[in-house]
Order: sequence, then C-alpha cells, then structure tokens
Amino acid sequence: MKLEEYQVWQGKILEARLSARVSHRGQYEAQVWEAMSYSLLAGGKRIRPLMLLLAAGAVTGECAQSVFDRVYPFAEALEMIHTYSLIHDDLPAMDNDDYRRGRLTNHKVFGEAIAILAGDGLLNLAYETIFEALLTDPAPGRLLAARTIAQAAGARGMVAGQTADMLAEQQKATPEHLDFIEENKTGQLMMAALLAGAQAAGAPEDAILSMRKAGRAMGKAFQIQDDILDVEGDAAELGKRTGSDAENEKVTFVTVYGIQKAREMVAELSADAAEALKDFHNESGELLREWIQALIYRKK
Amino acid sequence: MKLEEYQVWQGKILEARLSARVSHRGQYEAQVWEAMSYSLLAGGKRIRPLMLLLAAGAVTGECAQSVFDRVYPFAEALEMIHTYSLIHDDLPAMDNDDYRRGRLTNHKVFGEAIAILAGDGLLNLAYETIFEALLTDPAPGRLLAARTIAQAAGARGMVAGQTADMLAEQQKATPEHLDFIEENKTGQLMMAALLAGAQAAGAPEDAILSMRKAGRAMGKAFQIQDDILDVEGDAAELGKRTGSDAENEKVTFVTVYGIQKAREMVAELSADAAEALKDFHNESGELLREWIQALIYRKK
Repeated sequence: MKLEEYQVWQGKILEARLSARVSHRGQYEAQVWEAMSYSLLAGGKRIRPLMLLLAAGAVTGECAQSVFDRVYPFAEALEMIHTYSLIHDDLPAMDNDDYRRGRLTNHKVFGEAIAILAGDGLLNLAYETIFEALLTDPAPGRLLAARTIAQAAGARGMVAGQTADMLAEQQKATPEHLDFIEENKTGQLMMAALLAGAQAAGAPEDAILSMRKAGRAMGKAFQIQDDILDVEGDAAELGKRTGSDAENEKVTFVTVYGIQKAREMVAELSADAAEALKDFHNESGELLREWIQALIYRKK
Repeated sequence: MKLEEYQVWQGKILEARLSARVSHRGQYEAQVWEAMSYSLLAGGKRIRPLMLLLAAGAVTGECAQSVFDRVYPFAEALEMIHTYSLIHDDLPAMDNDDYRRGRLTNHKVFGEAIAILAGDGLLNLAYETIFEALLTDPAPGRLLAARTIAQAAGARGMVAGQTADMLAEQQKATPEHLDFIEENKTGQLMMAALLAGAQAAGAPEDAILSMRKAGRAMGKAFQIQDDILDVEGDAAELGKRTGSDAENEKVTFVTVYGIQKAREMVAELSADAAEALKDFHNESGELLREWIQALIYRKK
C-alpha cells in the first residue's frame, strides 16, 4: 500500500468516528458542542492518530482494520487532546490568533467563554472515550497507553511546554530552555502517538522502547523543521507568512544554532527515528518510516 | 464518630495527598505548578472528595482507612476537577471574578494565560491520577467510577451546565432551562461523588442506584439553598454580598418559584436524599446522611 492510500483509507474512517463523537447537541448545551465540532472537524492532517494506528500495526505485524479498531479510541482521544490544546493556545490571553488553517479560530466564531469551554469539553471527552474503551477491554497495555496519553498532555508534558514557551517570551531563553519547549510543546503528543499505539496493541517491552525512542526523535525533528521552514519556506506553499519568528525576535533552533546546524540536527534525529524503527519488517512499519521521513523533510 | 471528627480526620489526610500531587515544580514549568497548587490548596471545604469516601464506606459497611485508601485517587481527582472548573469559571471571559474564598482568583495572581494552563493542568492531572489507580487495580467498579467522573465533568455534564448558564444570561431562562443548569453545573460533581464512591468500592447494583438517587437530590437541593441564601442569608456569615442575584436580574429558583416554593423544594429533595440512603445502617452511612442534611440546610 502507498502511504497516501493509507492516509485516505484510515483518514475517512477516523473522520467518521470523530464526527460521531461530537454529534451530540442538546437543548441548552448545543453551542459548546458546535464549537467542539467546529475545531475537531476542521480538516487537520490527523498526524497523531493515524501514526498511532500505524504504531499498533507495526508492533503486531499487521496493517489491518481489525488491529486498528482495537486501538481507535486512543487515536481519537489523542486528536481531541491536540485540538483542545489548539483552541486554548489561540485564545487572546495566550497566542491571540485569529486564524488557523485558513479558518477563523474558535473564539473568533463562538466567543472566548465558549472557546474555553469547548477546549475543556474536548479534553474531558478524550478521557471519557478512553474510559469507555477500558471498560470494554482493560488489558494492561491499554492502561499503560491511557497513562502515556495523560502524562504527555499534562503539566509535566505539553502543558509544561506551553508554560515554558510563554516564559521564553518574557526572558531570553537558553538553548536548554529551548530544548525543553520543543520536546514538550509539540514533541510529547507526537511521542505519545507512537508509544501509546505500541502499548495499546500489547507490544513487548523492547518494541515499546523502540517506539518511544522513535517518537521522541520524530517530535523534535518535526519542530526544528518548523523553525527552518519559517526561515526558508515558501509562504505560498506554507499558507502562512514566513519570517515571523525573526520579526518577533523569537528564540528558535535556527536563531540559536544557525540554519546549517539546525539542518544537521534534523538529519541526525531523522536517522535516529529510522534506526529505532528498523526492526519492524512489515507494511505498517514501512509506512511509518516513510511517513516520518516525509514529515521531517516536509516543505510545508 | 462525630461528623466534625470525620471531617478533621480525613480532611488532613486529603490535604496531604493533594499537596503531594502538586508538589512538582521543575525548571521551566514551575509557574503553572505554583498556580495549580495555589488553587488546589486554597482551603476548600472538600465536600465532594470527603463525601466520596463516605459513600465508599457506606456501601462496604466500614468507616475505615483501609476502605478509604482504595478509593482515595478518585476523591482526589474529583477535587482537582472541581478546582479546575473554578479557575476557568473565574476568568475574565467567563464570570470575571477577582476573589474566591477571600483570596485573589488564580488569574489575578498568575495572569490569564497561566490560569488557563493551570486549569488544563489540573484536569489532566485528575485523569492521570485515575489511570495510575487503575493500573494498580483495574476492577470493573473502578472503571465505572472513572467513567462516571468523566461524564459528570464533561460537555454532557458540568461543562453543559456552564454553557447553559452563560446562555441564560443572554436570554430569559425558562424553568426547564433553570432546572438543567442547576442539575448540571453544580449537581453533576455532587452526584458523581456519591455514585463514583459506591462504584469504586465495588457496591452491588441496588446500592449504586441508591447513591445515584441521593446524589442527584443532594446536588439540586444544595444549589436551591444557594439561591435562597442569596436572598435571605447573612452577608457577614456568608463572607460574600447577598442580593446579587436580584441585582443582576439573574434567573434563580427563588426568582422563578418564589422563596416559599423554593424552601418546599429543598425540603422535598432533602427527604428524597434521606430516603435513598436509609438502608445504609453503618457509621459511614450515618455520617453521610447527617452531612447531607447539614449541607442542604446550611446558613452559609
């Protein structure tokens, strides 16, 4: 199977599942559900959930619906958590963004109060989705996957990264500070996608460790590439203005290490990810390796 | 044991446990953990978690540390969820409150961005705490308790109540609309305290149903009494201004039904709660009945 075929195949199924999760409206709470739907069904690339499925496929040696079905709730939860974090990140008190992916941000459409509640609603719904899945099958690996996701999302994970990012705007960040932001703000949910996918599928310890390693390398490389694209990306291709980091005097891998060193780091991390995944000799493993390389070296 | 003795006894243990949960600081994320601690350790009455323990005690027929220890993580999670909801509720975009329990609200001390993240951090930590507990013991009742808490907190529960409350400020609320707010905004977490406590302790189906019924009645009575106190409470005793609902033309049980009918509803719901709990002939059951009556007929 080609990577694009996989993305279309499981992408459609994921959209339908996510859509069903937020189909509730209700007489008095319809507004918050509309806001939740607006952002969850905004046509994201679905990188994290679709990678989680592939990680589960890679450790079980299958690229089959039957394998994916068992871990789908974890994939859905991860996308809900990613979406909640975007809604709250865009708020006026945080990054104050009016647009995301060419559409108005949640609070520009529904107002700040509903946007806060929509984020809260999605976060709770993510965990409710996981508990439902655990009630169906509380296998130890699934409990580990659940904890992985909560840790990655929480105040030692993504929320810590967001806090560190805000702090960096007030003071000149050191390279270590920058490392911390990149590893946590974007990296944690990327890492969790591979790690939780492997755990939920009941992978043995060595496979779990490989996925954790690959996830960490990928998450960091993904973020450094983001910084590189801000400097040398094509604005038309990216769909957003480039050069904004430099204008905002933002500390990034490129401003700290220079573009050449940043490129070397991406190459190194990319090799680390490929190395960690080299023993998964099956279709899901192939697709995962291919996708990670494509993501790391993306042009937009 | 007297009710007050129980509250002091378990209150101390709960404080220590909550304090340990938010003791992390870290080099770059210390601010968000300080904000989480500030609100979680602000000396709340701990009604929900301490009731959850009593519900577990009542269904097992014991009022012992060994029973409480097994369900403590669920009690802690419930208090974290309650606290996150207060932090987000107080934000300028929501109720815009500067003070809570005589102290500055979270965003007045740490700023809006950190307050949003502190709420998010506590919500994630609540679920991480539950997953840790499930990894130790994934008994079916504990999985049910976990789901109960997520449902009560989510966008069909408390978040739905908050949404309906905001909507009520924009339009004249009907009695049904008001019912919905009261049942969900405050009622859901109260109900979840009794229900999840019983479930986590492995109670049989009939005991679970009784606790659900008692929890719903208590949650609603608690809120109606709140509306009554706003009209006839003593400002000095309450520690806040009274009469604010009328000034704000807020629709409450008192403005819709009148004070006499509101009092009758409290009496009726109080009797419902007592009736639902009548078969728990043990110390925890006694304490629970006593506390619920005291809460419902509180003067502040």
